[in-house]
Amino acid sequence: MSNVRVAVIGCGYWGQNLLRNFCELEGADVVMVCDFDPRSLNRVTRRYPSIEVTPSYGDVLANPRVDAVVIATPVSTHYSLAKQALSANKHVLVEKPLAQSASQVLDLMELSERMGKTLMVDHTFLYTGAVRRMKTLVDSGDIGQLLYFDSVRISLGLVQSDINVLWDLGPHDLAIMDYLCGQTPVAIAATGVKHLNTPYENVAYVTVQFGNNFIAHFHLNWLAPVKVRRTLVGGSKKMIVYDDMENIEKVKVYDKGIVQTHDPDRREKMLTGYRNGDMFAPQLEGSEALRLMAREFVASIVEKRAPLSDGNAGYRVVRLLEAAQRSIEENGRLIYLDQESLWSETSADTSTVAAAD
Amino acid sequence: MSNVRVAVIGCGYWGQNLLRNFCELEGADVVMVCDFDPRSLNRVTRRYPSIEVTPSYGDVLANPRVDAVVIATPVSTHYSLAKQALSANKHVLVEKPLAQSASQVLDLMELSERMGKTLMVDHTFLYTGAVRRMKTLVDSGDIGQLLYFDSVRISLGLVQSDINVLWDLGPHDLAIMDYLCGQTPVAIAATGVKHLNTPYENVAYVTVQFGNNFIAHFHLNWLAPVKVRRTLVGGSKKMIVYDDMENIEKVKVYDKGIVQTHDPDRREKMLTGYRNGDMFAPQLEGSEALRLMAREFVASIVEKRAPLSDGNAGYRVVRLLEAAQRSIEENGRLIYLDQESLWSETSADTSTVAAAD
Amino acid sequence: MSNVRVAVIGCGYWGQNLLRNFCELEGADVVMVCDFDPRSLNRVTRRYPSIEVTPSYGDVLANPRVDAVVIATPVSTHYSLAKQALSANKHVLVEKPLAQSASQVLDLMELSERMGKTLMVDHTFLYTGAVRRMKTLVDSGDIGQLLYFDSVRISLGLVQSDINVLWDLGPHDLAIMDYLCGQTPVAIAATGVKHLNTPYENVAYVTVQFGNNFIAHFHLNWLAPVKVRRTLVGGSKKMIVYDDMENIEKVKVYDKGIVQTHDPDRREKMLTGYRNGDMFAPQLEGSEALRLMAREFVASIVEKRAPLSDGNAGYRVVRLLEAAQRSIEENGRLIYLDQESLWSETSADTSTVAAAD
Amino acid sequence: MSNVRVAVIGCGYWGQNLLRNFCELEGADVVMVCDFDPRSLNRVTRRYPSIEVTPSYGDVLANPRVDAVVIATPVSTHYSLAKQALSANKHVLVEKPLAQSASQVLDLMELSERMGKTLMVDHTFLYTGAVRRMKTLVDSGDIGQLLYFDSVRISLGLVQSDINVLWDLGPHDLAIMDYLCGQTPVAIAATGVKHLNTPYENVAYVTVQFGNNFIAHFHLNWLAPVKVRRTLVGGSKKMIVYDDMENIEKVKVYDKGIVQTHDPDRREKMLTGYRNGDMFAPQLEGSEALRLMAREFVASIVEKRAPLSDGNAGYRVVRLLEAAQRSIEENGRLIYLDQESLWSETSADTSTVAAAD
Repeated sequence: MSNVRVAVIGCGYWGQNLLRNFCELEGADVVMVCDFDPRSLNRVTRRYPSIEVTPSYGDVLANPRVDAVVIATPVSTHYSLAKQALSANKHVLVEKPLAQSASQVLDLMELSERMGKTLMVDHTFLYTGAVRRMKTLVDSGDIGQLLYFDSVRISLGLVQSDINVLWDLGPHDLAIMDYLCGQTPVAIAATGVKHLNTPYENVAYVTVQFGNNFIAHFHLNWLAPVKVRRTLVGGSKKMIVYDDMENIEKVKVYDKGIVQTHDPDRREKMLTGYRNGDMFAPQLEGSEALRLMAREFVASIVEKRAPLSDGNAGYRVVRLLEAAQRSIEENGRLIYLDQESLWSETSADTSTVAAAD
Repeated sequence: MSNVRVAVIGCGYWGQNLLRNFCELEGADVVMVCDFDPRSLNRVTRRYPSIEVTPSYGDVLANPRVDAVVIATPVSTHYSLAKQALSANKHVLVEKPLAQSASQVLDLMELSERMGKTLMVDHTFLYTGAVRRMKTLVDSGDIGQLLYFDSVRISLGLVQSDINVLWDLGPHDLAIMDYLCGQTPVAIAATGVKHLNTPYENVAYVTVQFGNNFIAHFHLNWLAPVKVRRTLVGGSKKMIVYDDMENIEKVKVYDKGIVQTHDPDRREKMLTGYRNGDMFAPQLEGSEALRLMAREFVASIVEKRAPLSDGNAGYRVVRLLEAAQRSIEENGRLIYLDQESLWSETSADTSTVAAAD
Repeated sequence: MSNVRVAVIGCGYWGQNLLRNFCELEGADVVMVCDFDPRSLNRVTRRYPSIEVTPSYGDVLANPRVDAVVIATPVSTHYSLAKQALSANKHVLVEKPLAQSASQVLDLMELSERMGKTLMVDHTFLYTGAVRRMKTLVDSGDIGQLLYFDSVRISLGLVQSDINVLWDLGPHDLAIMDYLCGQTPVAIAATGVKHLNTPYENVAYVTVQFGNNFIAHFHLNWLAPVKVRRTLVGGSKKMIVYDDMENIEKVKVYDKGIVQTHDPDRREKMLTGYRNGDMFAPQLEGSEALRLMAREFVASIVEKRAPLSDGNAGYRVVRLLEAAQRSIEENGRLIYLDQESLWSETSADTSTVAAAD
Repeated sequence: MSNVRVAVIGCGYWGQNLLRNFCELEGADVVMVCDFDPRSLNRVTRRYPSIEVTPSYGDVLANPRVDAVVIATPVSTHYSLAKQALSANKHVLVEKPLAQSASQVLDLMELSERMGKTLMVDHTFLYTGAVRRMKTLVDSGDIGQLLYFDSVRISLGLVQSDINVLWDLGPHDLAIMDYLCGQTPVAIAATGVKHLNTPYENVAYVTVQFGNNFIAHFHLNWLAPVKVRRTLVGGSKKMIVYDDMENIEKVKVYDKGIVQTHDPDRREKMLTGYRNGDMFAPQLEGSEALRLMAREFVASIVEKRAPLSDGNAGYRVVRLLEAAQRSIEENGRLIYLDQESLWSETSADTSTVAAAD
């Protein structure tokens, strides 16, 4: 079977990473790179002289040798660029978040379905060894019933010029939560603060409520003096700490929990204690997440199936972002979410990705 | 001047710590210990045979040799025990939180004023070397304008039998925030979750809003597999990380922040970048906080002045707890707070406590 | 059976810890405390008014109500005090190191045997949950063949007035190594440095060689800006990191090692690679080590058996200290050790101590 | 002035890093790459199509367009390749260690002097922000008199096929020590162990003695389950911890030390205590060390001066390696070193490198 021919759109920091990964991927050929900035294009040409470069997106769409586009441009352009590409009969991979509103995502999903083309969003963390291992742990039942998901992603980060910290950092953790938990949230509330005359929120706290006392909470901060990327997953049987700043032992599984016993003095009363046990840090599969993500895009095209992070996954994340943004603007008001069925039946599961490696 | 004669009421885990500290304190004599549990009283007698023990609070109140009572009983008894003691002309130190409602605290404050007796709450952390050093840093202006206060206090903790995690762990961090920031909050919102048929919330998130884009947030959790006690204080000039789990370097001051410059290409546009600098971990004064707290109680009695953690401080914390509890019950609704003047003019300041050491 | 009646000799920092533990121990009664310093004795009397105090060691030895003495005095006095006590028909527990020379220890061993009295040394670390768990791991064969033992014990410590860092900190790690490895060393070399006009070495490096390529190394330092207490145990199957500064996860077991395979290109050549696997931190038994040590002393008396850290164990450590000291004085010359049989057959094993808890 | 034209010899892991850095360096042009492995050459051609590749070193030496060679081949080839290059009138940069014996290095130094060509060794760590900052601290006198240098470099590393752990890891730390301390050692002792039928030592301990109670010690280990790269520098005034595994705060300066005071009770007696103070983590210059090293090579050629890590520096490190190897083979015997003058007067100092950045 012939290789999938890819064009990379936008060649900034992340676009360069995507370019490198698609260049090194078996089964794919990067044939074009498109960027407004001639310096970016020059840099590409120097390093990859065989790739055609252009400042014109129209050139890319008109090129019959391009099967698929990989969009790594500012968020505000995602919808328009993806829509044009699907209309031009290209498969599409979009940087996170997939678009700026849930309705935009639905539009793209409908179009991709109609055109028979893959629509995928780059939820990179889903392809890390850490998150995939956690998914296995959750799905196996070892963790028990999920009690809470608590995520902190803070650092002294580059303040973005077109989006706030919610839309910049939030997609990572919302996508991880969505993937791990596989549950439909009931409501969301968020608070955000703008500091120092910045036009966008640089600190945000987001709470997501589910139906069964399961709660998720997110701390997103561009203004923190230390870099923290830590997620706690509390279960009725075991608990996970996922610390992405660790070099090696990123995932630790604690055999800890609550136990309830009858009070020996008063039979009707329950005593609540806690249980301590071993800790275990599984070895993680070490492939670069971006490489697996790129491979999943190509595989979904070749195998004509939905990718792991398909339009549905993108939709589930964007509708949370949209509702959280509304909550921020209404000073933390709880926003209820439609209880639609949001899970595609054809999504590839973890084992597929892992096994393919 | 003769020593202040103290009775300790309640001799559980924390009561024993208070007992030990008051026993070792110059200027104080522990003359009575009161507890319902005869085993606790026996333990006291074995270790301190000269101290009178009694199961009857009435005995304590009727004893003219008792100048002051130190109350370390369950929260639900604080108000009643403190009220009786003040009425019986005793000075009163109460374990945190001072009472179960703001109106109870106001009642006690009015009574202590009328009787001319000290009313103090044991906000222990205010007396740690770490918090006192942070107070000096904030007050000196080195930190600049306060941007956010973010606190995480989580562990696999003993689930309390009469209060939830908000009322158990929350007073620590709310008192630290209140002390460090010295600002009157505008509104509060909180979310709490009960898990595994426990009668009380074991996870809570609390957000406190202030008038000037300053925000405070608290993560309280009894169900976490790891023990974290970390507070970030973001300022416009510097930022502090206070990690109470560190053995030595509990307070780190980062010379980091946001900088805003004009875009060289488009003068009207501001570019937001960040600034990196040295980190500095000041040596902290190492006295036991509880000892300093006990000494402040005795000193406030002797010097006939308000203690650092006076009724006002207790009130400011309890009214936040009360409002946060209401918010939890109303599913996170934002509760606005009265903008009364909450700061007593006579409060001892940090330097007093530190200098006295 | 009646309680063992104990006298504590020397009531400084460590003596107070021993006193507290023997006071709280079932099966033992502390009947006397002996110290030269009247302030120490006053402190004891205030806290334990029923214990007789004396500045005279003769009073202790002459007291027929004293069954056993616990010696926590400066190292230079250990031998003389222990000898007098055994001669006076008392059981003896001595703070580490047991004496100042191997011949002194042999003398005490011979005397204790003749008098039929217990001779025990306080190698406290042998009674920690961490070391006992490591012993189980090593003995089970899970670690495989021992390759190296590397220990670092450094901090900004109190410079001792009568011994150097080797004799002060060394006994801890030599005792742990001796206990875990159970092998007889072949030779030892050490280097030590005196700084800043101090009369004793405050930095020392010790290397112990065994017969089978197993090597042990010790870094002891009173002059380090950070506190490190970390031991690596390398095995052919697994490796252990024991970090005593960790609050919880003190022992981590790594499923890592070397693998050797035939070079596919040249069959006669071996390729050496490494193997990565999971990490596992077993939950440790949390009892205070000193309490277990005190209990082992009492149990060995009652059960008329050798304690876990008996005279033999004390001898094995002291002869290493003595040889290391000689090596330091001879500028690091390798000192060969007698290959005598140094292991008593009656020593209690770990499981006894652990099971008894 | 025209660019220095460089050939990279050996294009394995480190050679590729050097290639990338010289390609991106202003003032240098990479004109040739030489390697035996056609796959390596193919990889170079794909990425840098304009660079000439060859398997023949003779082609490189014969090419008049090559001004300088950068040698990143196995250690056993360093001497021969460098000698040929100098003889062919090329400037030479050699991967560490510079050669396999001190006499080889002297030979190369003499030849480079005679030919008027630069001879430089890639002691990469000298060009890190961390080591350069430490050099400034030591040179400023802030640290006081140096007391000890203690270095640990351990991990589960690739066992090398042609050298032992001493020659593989040792050059890094010996070069750092040599640079920071600037003192001539008196003697060296080392112990090494071979495990699991490996032909080379995979664990080594090295002690270096200086004349004034200053001591340096090195723990090198390929068989450790955790990666540690930590150096302590003890001074009479302050102490440094350099932890290369930290992401940000690699260098911490502790205001700690020993203090000696007269005993108030006995005037003639000195009491030795310790002093605690603040800790300070300076912000480090973040340029890639390899880039600075490459630039220093080019600058030394253009400016016709000795580079920071010149032949002398290489000699000082290799003669320590050679003596340590001898000590290992003689089971730890102390090897005395010639007290020659080993410091070139023309060496560039730190400030030059830092300022140039």
